[in-house]
Parts: sequence; C-alpha cells; structure tokens
Amino acid sequence: MLSASARTHLTIVLVGARNPQNIGAAARAMQDFGFTDLRVVNDFAAPFEAAQLDAPKSAVGAANVMRDARRFDDLANAIEDCHLICGTTAIGGRELAQPITTLQQTAPQLVESLGSGRKVALLFGSEKTGLTNEQLSHCELLLTIPLFAPENVRHLSMNLGQSVAVCLYELSREGFEHSRELPILHEAAATSADRERLIQRLLSTMEATGYSRRFPANAREHIVRRLAQQLGETHDEASTWLGFFRQIERAMRPTSAEDEQ
Amino acid sequence: MLSASARTHLTIVLVGARNPQNIGAAARAMQDFGFTDLRVVNDFAAPFEAAQLDAPKSAVGAANVMRDARRFDDLANAIEDCHLICGTTAIGGRELAQPITTLQQTAPQLVESLGSGRKVALLFGSEKTGLTNEQLSHCELLLTIPLFAPENVRHLSMNLGQSVAVCLYELSREGFEHSRELPILHEAAATSADRERLIQRLLSTMEATGYSRRFPANAREHIVRRLAQQLGETHDEASTWLGFFRQIERAMRPTSAEDEQ
Repeated sequence: MLSASARTHLTIVLVGARNPQNIGAAARAMQDFGFTDLRVVNDFAAPFEAAQLDAPKSAVGAANVMRDARRFDDLANAIEDCHLICGTTAIGGRELAQPITTLQQTAPQLVESLGSGRKVALLFGSEKTGLTNEQLSHCELLLTIPLFAPENVRHLSMNLGQSVAVCLYELSREGFEHSRELPILHEAAATSADRERLIQRLLSTMEATGYSRRFPANAREHIVRRLAQQLGETHDEASTWLGFFRQIERAMRPTSAEDEQ
Repeated sequence: MLSASARTHLTIVLVGARNPQNIGAAARAMQDFGFTDLRVVNDFAAPFEAAQLDAPKSAVGAANVMRDARRFDDLANAIEDCHLICGTTAIGGRELAQPITTLQQTAPQLVESLGSGRKVALLFGSEKTGLTNEQLSHCELLLTIPLFAPENVRHLSMNLGQSVAVCLYELSREGFEHSRELPILHEAAATSADRERLIQRLLSTMEATGYSRRFPANAREHIVRRLAQQLGETHDEASTWLGFFRQIERAMRPTSAEDEQ
C-alpha cells in the first residue's frame, strides 16, 4: 500500500478548471484518499480564489488541501519539480503522439514512482476541452479511464471531481490486499525543469546546425518536445545531454570555441 | 468484461439523497460506465424532481438515465425485484450485523451476479448520514471504499457522485485489461539495428564536435551506449535522431555542406 509519505509525492494538477465547485470536489477526493498537493493552472485567478473561499462548503472535509493549494499561470512552472508527468484524457477522435493506456494499466508505474520518492504530476484538463495537444505534449504518459459508450454516444467525458476520485482510488487500490514498500531509487531522476532545458536546447541546436531548415516537419516544437522526453532518465544523464548539445553549438562557432562554459 | 446486457441488471439506489446535483452526478457516472437503472428513495419528491428538471445541466450527457429514473417512497419497494442487495458504507464507529468488505473484494461477486442475470441493487445513503442501520438491514452484503484517513481525522465520507463513480469503475475495471478497444499504436518500434546505428553515429558526432575531447569520461562507449538507448522509441523517431546527428556532422564541414545524403 502507498504509505503516507509516498502519497506526498503525488501532485494533482488541474489545468484550466473553470468551475470552483469542481476544484473543491477534486480537493475533497484528495483528502479522502490521503493526497495533499493540489495545483491549479489558470491564467485568471477567479475560479481558484472562489474555490478557496468556498472550501468549507464545497470541499467538505478538504479545507486543508484547499488552503495549501497553489495557483500557477503556466503549466511548465506548475510541474517543474516533478519527475514523471502523466496526463489524463478521454479518447476522442484526435491523433496523439503518445500511446494511451488505461488507468489500471498505468497505475503500477505511478505507484512505483511514488514509492521510490519520485514526484509524479497527474494532469486533468478543463471541463470543456480536457487537456489540449500542447498540454499533452508535456506528458510522458497518458492514461484514460475506460468508459462504456453505447453505440449512439460518440464521445464521453467524466465529471472532473469524479475523474480525480477514480484515479486516486485506483492508485490506492492495490495493497489494501498486499502491502510492501518499494525500494528507494538512489539516482536523482530528471526533473521537469531538466526536461524543459533539454527541449529548449535541442530546439536551438537544431536551429544552429541547420537541421530545422532542412527538415522543418521534424523540428516542430511538439515533435522536438517528444524527442526530448527520451533524453536522460536521471538528472546526471540529462546534464550530459545538455552538455553535449552545448558543445555542438560551441563547435558551430569556431572563433569563440573555447570561451564559453 | 461486463456486457451491455449484464449492465442492465445493476440498479443504483440513492436512499434519502437531498441534493439534486448529487442525484444528477450519480446519473452522469452511470451514463459514463454504461449503467442505466437509477432509483431514488425519498419520502418527499422535491430533490428528485429538481434533478430531473436540472438534468440537461447537472447530469451532462446523462439525460437518458435521469429521464428513466424512478422515485420510491420506500426502500423495500425500490428493491423488491432485485436478487442481491449490497449497501455501501463508510466505516464509522457503529456496530454492524454484517461483515464489511472492501469494494475491490466485493466486486467479483457483484460482477458474477450481473453476468448471470441476477439483478443487483447497490445502495448509497444520504449525504448527511449514509445508510441508517434500518436501511443496512435490507442488505446481504456491505462494502466500503477504502479511504486513507490521517490520524487526526476521525471519520471520512465521500461525495455521493464520486462514490458512485468509483464503485462503477471497479465493476467495469476487470476485462478492460484485455480489451482491444484502445487505439493500437501502429508505429514500428525501433529495432536493434536502429539502435546500433544510433550508437555509432552518436560516438562519431561526439568526436566531430569535440565533445569527446573535452569530456572524455562521458564519451566512453558504455556511457554513450546507455545514452543512445534512450533515443527513439519508434523506428521513425530513431531515423529522426540519426538524421539530426548526420546534419550536425555535415554542419561541422562547411565546404561539403550540401553534398551528402
């Protein structure tokens, strides 16, 4: 079973949630399952502030979670200290770069990360649209809650608070049968900030070497973002890749070859 | 997996629900997971009628479930055609006649009944009190959703709509593991030959850019081999990386910049 301390490593990120009641409902589900770190990404503050004011009512018993919740203007900032980013999505018609697995297929990997002390961010999109393609491109994993659509219903999506509750139930589900703590990972994992630096550096290196010009289709940001997801599992490896790309750019400019760190 | 017809044998019974929004939320969860038979037990009609009026808004996409829902004055009448009665309860301090099992322990028995055509009633109590002892006495089985209460919280209870969603998720959970309903990823995975080409190319690019000379410890073959393992999950991605490294090497030699494929 996930220990109380393992549970502190999960961050629930509501991206673009507009309804304060839904934010409160997510907080309540977190409280019920013993999770505490709630972050709301929204470029206007109103829904978050309303949810905090409403907390004693809408987030019954979850006042602590709401009080400690934080709002961010920007998704990248909200997840920069996280090691594993997992998006939730309904299976719509769109094409996605990443494979999607069901909640129950994905849960063991998330549980293992939490148990070994790696911070996991679980992202939920707005009520209207879910996570956009740009938001999904921040994710290494995508999961979907398997719904049961009758023939005549083209597209199902769940209520936000219910989605959060179902995901947290699944993460808490195992181990009520057999519990054991997972081994600690000693190497520091690459963080989302490492990842973002790599993405930016890879883009600039593709530019500097003329790759972007010759193969523009491969150098589009969402493609490069996905390629950079592959670089460096640990912080040290991410640093090695970064140093290599820096060296490539330095080598492009023979005159100043040795004057840059 | 529960078939569509097996799902028709489950009846969700909300006993004493007072908040129309919660009734709508339960209907929405039912629609999401393919269940249709909703019954509300209440000796006054107002919450049920309000939920039906509100259905287009509060029970987004669940208008059908709400339209066909029925209200009963009395619990015994509401469940009289059901074969197996299962109550849901938070584990409070009270003494219960029946043993309580967790949702995940109880689910197989419910699924088996549904699959064999026996009607199952799953009862949820009111938001304030849950199922009373009198209401619980109608039940052959009692289940609880395992919550994670910190030391200082004496009694947790879930939001009604969230409880319904979590229970229906658990009933739907098995069998989706083997389902082919998720989109198949058609992209060919990177082969071992792709991998070896990448390793050799990465070594030569590190050489060409002067990286190996400046950071020899990072350019040792076993390190580079490990880094190259991370490049390209699919064959197409491996090709993209390979093309990018070729371009870097080409860009190192300005005189012959355009004459190599």
